[in-house]
Amino acid sequence: NHKLKLFSLNSNLSLAQEVAEKIGVPLGKSSVNRFSDGEVQINIEESIRGCDVFIIQSTSGPVNENIMELLIMIDAVKRASAQTINVVMPYYGYARQDRKARSREPITAKLVANLLETAGAHRVIVLDLHAPQIQGFFDIMIDHLMGVPILAEYFKQKNLDPSELVIVSPDHGGVTRARKMADRLKAPIAIIDKRRPRPNVAEVMNIVGNVEGKTAILIDDIIDTAGTITIGANALIESGAKEVYACCTHPVLSGPAIERIDNSAIKELIITNSIELPESKFSPKIKQLSVANLLADAIIRVFEEKSVSTLFD
Amino acid sequence: NHKLKLFSLNSNLSLAQEVAEKIGVPLGKSSVNRFSDGEVQINIEESIRGCDVFIIQSTSGPVNENIMELLIMIDAVKRASAQTINVVMPYYGYARQDRKARSREPITAKLVANLLETAGAHRVIVLDLHAPQIQGFFDIMIDHLMGVPILAEYFKQKNLDPSELVIVSPDHGGVTRARKMADRLKAPIAIIDKRRPRPNVAEVMNIVGNVEGKTAILIDDIIDTAGTITIGANALIESGAKEVYACCTHPVLSGPAIERIDNSAIKELIITNSIELPESKFSPKIKQLSVANLLADAIIRVFEEKSVSTLFD
Ligand SMILES: Nc1ncnc2c1ncn2[C@@H]1O[C@H](COP(=O)(O)O)[C@@H](O)[C@H]1O
Ligand SMILES: Nc1ncnc2c1ncn2[C@@H]1O[C@H](COP(=O)(O)O)[C@@H](O)[C@H]1O
Repeated sequence: NHKLKLFSLNSNLSLAQEVAEKIGVPLGKSSVNRFSDGEVQINIEESIRGCDVFIIQSTSGPVNENIMELLIMIDAVKRASAQTINVVMPYYGYARQDRKARSREPITAKLVANLLETAGAHRVIVLDLHAPQIQGFFDIMIDHLMGVPILAEYFKQKNLDPSELVIVSPDHGGVTRARKMADRLKAPIAIIDKRRPRPNVAEVMNIVGNVEGKTAILIDDIIDTAGTITIGANALIESGAKEVYACCTHPVLSGPAIERIDNSAIKELIITNSIELPESKFSPKIKQLSVANLLADAIIRVFEEKSVSTLFD
Repeated sequence: NHKLKLFSLNSNLSLAQEVAEKIGVPLGKSSVNRFSDGEVQINIEESIRGCDVFIIQSTSGPVNENIMELLIMIDAVKRASAQTINVVMPYYGYARQDRKARSREPITAKLVANLLETAGAHRVIVLDLHAPQIQGFFDIMIDHLMGVPILAEYFKQKNLDPSELVIVSPDHGGVTRARKMADRLKAPIAIIDKRRPRPNVAEVMNIVGNVEGKTAILIDDIIDTAGTITIGANALIESGAKEVYACCTHPVLSGPAIERIDNSAIKELIITNSIELPESKFSPKIKQLSVANLLADAIIRVFEEKSVSTLFD
């Protein structure tokens, strides 16, 4: 007869609050601050003995602060005699460092998995990992949720004619994701095929598939500096697309991203709240959808020991 | 016939360079940068296959950045087939979170030890841990170096009359350290005995030991916000001390520290370079000593598989 306790750290408090409301529990009482020298100071302010504890933290920027906050919180929860420690990471930082692209590089996505286990996590719930293989970096249970249904639902509401629609992957790596979106919208796909003919020569943008006269929807998992997506959008317009929407699950939006989006052919950018967007990044083109329902469902199912797999798309 | 390779991360490059010069090896080539979104990007730019690798990093502020840099570097070094990975931490961050002072707190000093082992460290070399018990948090080899001889040597050079000298611990926890210093200078000790007579009543400073007419040397391991040490110095002067020096191994010096020191009765503050001091913190009262020789000796002894214990005081 144990209890569900939900704690939020500092990366995405508004999403955590929304999740708590959907589940119908208050957020657990804790103080997560900094000492004068910048060290993380955590104190859990209610008993969690024997409870199933869920900790919500996106390891978005400042990524190293947010990872350390999470690891230290797991340690505190463990020492406070929780029964299970479940880590909910709407955004999994360092996911792009998932292989040695060059010699003598780290594989930080694997390191982070090991650190979470070492700190004491029993289970993690994640959303749209950059590569699904990252699931295999964990020896503990991992639930991998999908953002595509939420993004697709938004476009369904627009009642666009499927014959006038095309779902576009901005690179080769994202074709599976575009295919999933296309299935839901009953639309065909296209791929932006970047190629560098010779070293030190500008890349050539070649569009594989028919976009002429169509409404194109570019889909990616992460939009970071927005280079790929904005260049892709402009290439689609040049190839005769009528209009271009872009969407992604994780709005990292670092560096010149907002400026690039504002100046691009993108009509509207649909994102989720897996990463909290600061006020300064709200471009008028951006429309944000919530993943709170999806996370709340997953948490309840894990707590009730039901299958989460129906949420995997 | 393996080789010694020495790498520095970003927390204390000047100390690492000094250590490299003492040892007579160049610092290993690596790039340790940030991606646009703030994630650590590391690439080791020379072969380290089969080498004994030493990584120098103080986990001083920004502590979470510096810890993550260190863990990711260890991962990169491990995957580059180093023979041994030796972590040199002149300052060990989170050392003060070494026990549960209240219920439901983390023990972050132990967490950090576990994280270092998980990342792949084989051995750590540290300097003046806040509590020597932190050695027991590690299952790998740990060498614990002492800063007292370096600080004591500085005062010996002043040729102060031992009968006019007293070594003062600013609190009960530091008496052993004061005793070590006193042995080296053949001086007596005193203790500042803070006591709160009733809750919500100001602390009373009581000095145990004779300081009248003497040159007092306050010694601590860490000076952080400098509250304890400056209040202590003023109390010593009020109790008749002729002049007050202060010294510590680790100059954290956060928040109001410099202002407090400048406005205090402290004549001179002697620190080491275990933590790199930014230009903005160089008060005219501060005198910095180098631990480069101590670290270089320890690294050579570990590499040559000689005993390091002679360096432990
Ligand atoms: N935070 C980051 N920002 C930009 N690039 C990254 C980041 N982390 C890893 N990478 C690089 O992105 C590449 C992997 O991205 P991808 O090809 O889309 O899977 C690798 O070359 C990584 O070194
Ligand atoms: N970075 C920090 N800054 C200030 N106090 C801290 C820090 N880390 C831990 N502490 C607290 O300092 C106390 C331990 O210091 P001490 O009694 O000197 O060993 C504990 O109550 C800790 O919660």
